[in-house]
Amino acid sequence: MVDVTLTLPAGDVLLRRALSQDLSAIVGLLADDSISASRGDADRPEDRVAYERAFAAIDADPAQQLLVATSLLGEVLATMQLTVIPGLARVGSTRLQIEAVRVRSDQRSRGLGGAMIRWAVQNAPAFGAQLVQLTSDAARVDAHRFYERLGFTASHVGFKHAVPTVS
Amino acid sequence: MVDVTLTLPAGDVLLRRALSQDLSAIVGLLADDSISASRGDADRPEDRVAYERAFAAIDADPAQQLLVATSLLGEVLATMQLTVIPGLARVGSTRLQIEAVRVRSDQRSRGLGGAMIRWAVQNAPAFGAQLVQLTSDAARVDAHRFYERLGFTASHVGFKHAVPTVS
Repeated sequence: MVDVTLTLPAGDVLLRRALSQDLSAIVGLLADDSISASRGDADRPEDRVAYERAFAAIDADPAQQLLVATSLLGEVLATMQLTVIPGLARVGSTRLQIEAVRVRSDQRSRGLGGAMIRWAVQNAPAFGAQLVQLTSDAARVDAHRFYERLGFTASHVGFKHAVPTVS
Repeated sequence: MVDVTLTLPAGDVLLRRALSQDLSAIVGLLADDSISASRGDADRPEDRVAYERAFAAIDADPAQQLLVATSLLGEVLATMQLTVIPGLARVGSTRLQIEAVRVRSDQRSRGLGGAMIRWAVQNAPAFGAQLVQLTSDAARVDAHRFYERLGFTASHVGFKHAVPTVS
């Protein structure tokens, strides 16, 4: 169970597993991002069921850790999702994959995102992982520099393919 | 349970879930790839335990499908790993992630890899997924064209960060 304090220049932040009552705040973080918003993430009442269903699926899967960083008063400031993926390649390496990193717009450039990612890399062995991986939209040039400063190598090209939804 | 026939110009191939007796053949496919080999994948006796442990972890995780494509005589010709990743982004989209696609060197350019990837995209809804994603090493320029021909968009940059192993 993740429940840690990250010490930042602007003050301590708590990093913990997301609870269902955090869902609105997390969806707000997605909607507060121009690239996510362009992919349909918004805080619309009609999408509530889809987000709730997705939250339940994440929460029920022991390979997933949906995390939130909160202020000491409990305000959700940032989120990220970690997925543990066992694999054969690289002599049977387990990967810790980071997805959906979002920091509230008024909290950016204060070291919070960096502290979260550093925590994930440092704690990868506790998740059984020998490799941390993530992809970042090609348009997020600032994010690429950020990940390189944190020790990541931009060694891969990330491909996506939408598939028709079956209703 | 995946157990399908892929029809190719050169003849039918079976696509099925990998069994423990396929492990040596799959490790052989990894070793038969120059980029994988440069990351340490080889068919060395001392790595056998690490591969066996990784296979057991993949096999025990219901979110993982480690697949092999075999000839009608049972020879392993190719492999890929699929991972189902629930997520909140893109209005609660579940992702089907493809990793570790390898085709035996004497079987390349015969449509086998394309048939496997097309099968994964077409069957993504059966895995509950609305998005298929993968990363490919930046050095695999031919693979990038291959994925684009199959309908993928090279929209992301893939970052990796090795972490110290704890023994």
